[in-house]
Amino acid sequence: MAALGPDPRSRGTSSRRVGRAHPAGAAAGPSPPAAAPAATLILFGASGDLARRKLIPALWQLWRAGALAPGWRVLGVAHDPYDRDAYRHVVDTAVAAAGLPGAGDAAARAAFAAAFDYQGADFGDAAAYAALGERLADAAAPAHRLFYLATPPPLYPVIVDHLGRAGLTRPGPAAADAPVRLVVEKPFGTDRASAQALNRRLHRMFREEQIFRIDHYLGKETVQNILVLRFANGLFEPVWNRTYVDHVQITVAETLGVEGRGAYYEGAGALRDMVQNHLLQLLSLVAMEPPVAFSADDVRDRKVDVLRSIHPPAPDRVAATVVRGQYAAGRVPAEGAAEPAARGEAVAAYRDEAGVAPGSQTETFVAAQLLVDSWRWAGVPFYLRTGKRMRRRVAEIAVQFRRPPQTLFRDTDAARAGLQPNVLVLRLQPEEGVFLRFGVKTPGAAIDVEPVEMDFTYRSRFPDGGLDGYGRLLLDALRGDATLFTRADEAEAAWAVVDAIREGWRSDPAGGKGQDGPVPYRAGSWGPPAAARLLARSGRSWRRP
Amino acid sequence: MAALGPDPRSRGTSSRRVGRAHPAGAAAGPSPPAAAPAATLILFGASGDLARRKLIPALWQLWRAGALAPGWRVLGVAHDPYDRDAYRHVVDTAVAAAGLPGAGDAAARAAFAAAFDYQGADFGDAAAYAALGERLADAAAPAHRLFYLATPPPLYPVIVDHLGRAGLTRPGPAAADAPVRLVVEKPFGTDRASAQALNRRLHRMFREEQIFRIDHYLGKETVQNILVLRFANGLFEPVWNRTYVDHVQITVAETLGVEGRGAYYEGAGALRDMVQNHLLQLLSLVAMEPPVAFSADDVRDRKVDVLRSIHPPAPDRVAATVVRGQYAAGRVPAEGAAEPAARGEAVAAYRDEAGVAPGSQTETFVAAQLLVDSWRWAGVPFYLRTGKRMRRRVAEIAVQFRRPPQTLFRDTDAARAGLQPNVLVLRLQPEEGVFLRFGVKTPGAAIDVEPVEMDFTYRSRFPDGGLDGYGRLLLDALRGDATLFTRADEAEAAWAVVDAIREGWRSDPAGGKGQDGPVPYRAGSWGPPAAARLLARSGRSWRRP
Repeated sequence: MAALGPDPRSRGTSSRRVGRAHPAGAAAGPSPPAAAPAATLILFGASGDLARRKLIPALWQLWRAGALAPGWRVLGVAHDPYDRDAYRHVVDTAVAAAGLPGAGDAAARAAFAAAFDYQGADFGDAAAYAALGERLADAAAPAHRLFYLATPPPLYPVIVDHLGRAGLTRPGPAAADAPVRLVVEKPFGTDRASAQALNRRLHRMFREEQIFRIDHYLGKETVQNILVLRFANGLFEPVWNRTYVDHVQITVAETLGVEGRGAYYEGAGALRDMVQNHLLQLLSLVAMEPPVAFSADDVRDRKVDVLRSIHPPAPDRVAATVVRGQYAAGRVPAEGAAEPAARGEAVAAYRDEAGVAPGSQTETFVAAQLLVDSWRWAGVPFYLRTGKRMRRRVAEIAVQFRRPPQTLFRDTDAARAGLQPNVLVLRLQPEEGVFLRFGVKTPGAAIDVEPVEMDFTYRSRFPDGGLDGYGRLLLDALRGDATLFTRADEAEAAWAVVDAIREGWRSDPAGGKGQDGPVPYRAGSWGPPAAARLLARSGRSWRRP
Repeated sequence: MAALGPDPRSRGTSSRRVGRAHPAGAAAGPSPPAAAPAATLILFGASGDLARRKLIPALWQLWRAGALAPGWRVLGVAHDPYDRDAYRHVVDTAVAAAGLPGAGDAAARAAFAAAFDYQGADFGDAAAYAALGERLADAAAPAHRLFYLATPPPLYPVIVDHLGRAGLTRPGPAAADAPVRLVVEKPFGTDRASAQALNRRLHRMFREEQIFRIDHYLGKETVQNILVLRFANGLFEPVWNRTYVDHVQITVAETLGVEGRGAYYEGAGALRDMVQNHLLQLLSLVAMEPPVAFSADDVRDRKVDVLRSIHPPAPDRVAATVVRGQYAAGRVPAEGAAEPAARGEAVAAYRDEAGVAPGSQTETFVAAQLLVDSWRWAGVPFYLRTGKRMRRRVAEIAVQFRRPPQTLFRDTDAARAGLQPNVLVLRLQPEEGVFLRFGVKTPGAAIDVEPVEMDFTYRSRFPDGGLDGYGRLLLDALRGDATLFTRADEAEAAWAVVDAIREGWRSDPAGGKGQDGPVPYRAGSWGPPAAARLLARSGRSWRRP
């Protein structure tokens, strides 16, 4: 195999590496990605949806950005009877279809596709791994290996066992100390026990530091943006605790339904599909103590501390602290609409979706109140909510501060109206940014205080953005930076929280009130009324993002 | 005298009193001014520049806003031999010339002017006050009286003595408990001793709560905006102290020169003309403890505490902590230009201005480091600077917070570049607003932190603004709200700080270095280099607003 990847530095991308000037107020480009050492990416599930729609376009972006060192190659592995050229055609088509910058250049696409090879394989057949080993032993294949399992999760143990038995988890002959790493996609297990079992299987063949559990939701800049916002500023950290924070709200709302994945979703539900990973990840980032350093294990140590500090609700308390809902028919705003259309698209109830049982008890919405039993957060509720078919697509963390004492304003209109608390919002979607709600005086002789917002959006300052989720995560995996990936103990600790809630649902379906299962909510709403009551009990309310 | 003021409520302004809706995010109008009880405003210096350019237009605005109760009248008093109609013509002309909303309506102007009467007077002649007394005894003149001294300050004791001797400091016969108040313009004294002497003179005839010392600079919404920002928000007050604040910068920069007032300015200088009132007012607002209530005396008690806590520099320390400058020739941006023009208007040196001595030692620029010896602020420097012929017209308070500990970022680009501190800026001019500078992560794999700004401008939220400086202050004086006015002890405490600096200049002109007087700076610059060194000594630097 002589097909070497083209040298990206010959493609005119070097201008992005030139020292950047940052004049105050001017827009600046992202830092150029640091190139990873040349690697062989062995892509299992090479012809699947994830590979074609996400991974190949992400590699295209990395290549164009000069982030793939010369010599990089991809070995696609899948069941399909492609030969090398047929697979390169798949790659070429995937790039063209993604509509990415530069994708219209057929010669560039061909140069890119030249780094790809293919091997058909039955993932359960030892012979396939022997053949794979022969290809990887080729002197042209970089000894640095990244196995990417873009396959259904049940195949993970199968593939990993075979990789180990075939001796492929060791680096190639060219460099005995070259890294070998494994990337696995979510979901990682279906509960704590299965996650532990899967971890044990993987650990038989890979050390933990070789394993990269991907959560593409956090792949963008979000994780590091949150950490920098918290720890690179003198203003926020002093008030980031129970003395000044009243509560935290984490919302991840989708307008989409199950989109043809009803059969899959029936076995998952919002709690396992969203809360276990995305929402608990966000919670741990917002609640964590400062890590010792900005390294993968330091950051993840502190995140795991948070997850382990979450007080898992006792089964008979779940009904009082967790609300589950299931969408009924309704109208949702058109995808991409910034504001809900007055009359959106009419959509069906979850139970009428293809692949969903007519009497399904699967939740498409969860709202939960969690307590983090730490010195910093004792007594501060963290409210999480996520759902499909919600009123708007939005993902945000809102830190609501305590109300100031009102005594100073006691004889004023401001006191009569009630001072509104300050809220710092870290918005992730649809547009990443930071918002601060605070109170100012309404002009005039009366002391009237009105909430206003200051805002900052990353795009306003960095219009180029950065790599998208998968590009960033692929690059980090190639470079061996596991900060954005879920560690074994982290996945298990998150499952422990989710398992406690599921146990409550199982043993005490509705707090002894004789009902069970999720309560319906109208598609295009903010979830069932019980979600509002969850906060109203303590005089709080959800933000309307 | 039967000339009653027109009823403003018949002029269609009542719509501004209708209950306002404040939908989130929508622009809202200012609160309608609460009307003051009907009053007689006795305006000394009724034909002067201040009356014509500021006070009469301010009354017009109040009248249009429905803030003057029916029956209000103005009795102009001045040396000029006007009769009533001639003065009403002066009023009419002043309104028309001010170009205010509604001023094009001649009938409205005439209705407004009908509330004005006039009496010619020699301010030193007792007979004039007897005549004044007869007019005020007229049953049509509201018993509630406001004497406004829009005259040169040397006349204050003269007029006040005569008012007292003529028995006019007591309310009219119609209502023995109607308020009688006195408004005096700045400058209030030229040092502490003269301010004390003036206070003693005024207090012989008026109680302190009747006296309103005006500082039009703070007349807008600024004072209350600062207090509301600080005390109606839960986020700022916890970090508003020496634990979290590194230092505070207060800048009041003008692009104007002395504008024909050279002879006056020669005897004043920036220290007395600006620092004694405007800058120390701003300092006391930003540094004060929360007042017990939002009342005039509670607020002023806490402001005086700050002024009294300022450590007056010893004479031999003045050269090290206070920089004085005087503008040389240069170029300044055109008035009203948002940004300095690359090539502005060429302007003369201060010493070449009309009325200025060729060897003048008067300062047109002051930069000072002051320390507030309080529990809250011990060790936190307050840097003040003000000057004429500066690079930009701007007035702002910048609270710079301490840098966060950098350990977390020690292996990152952010640490190598140095984390920038957070800065909260309260801008007063040219556009009132609030800005927060904080650090965010630059997109990309490296941990690069860049400062960005969130901002809020009052105009973006309240496009109607509010009353301008004089309108607001007149209304407050009519309503008896002294919050925005300087109390006797406040004026004296501010003079004590200024006197200490002047004593240093007098006794130790330049720290024993054999130089004296102000150092020249180029017109259109940010002042002399010594001002930068004042901060550079401790590793700090002035903001470039």
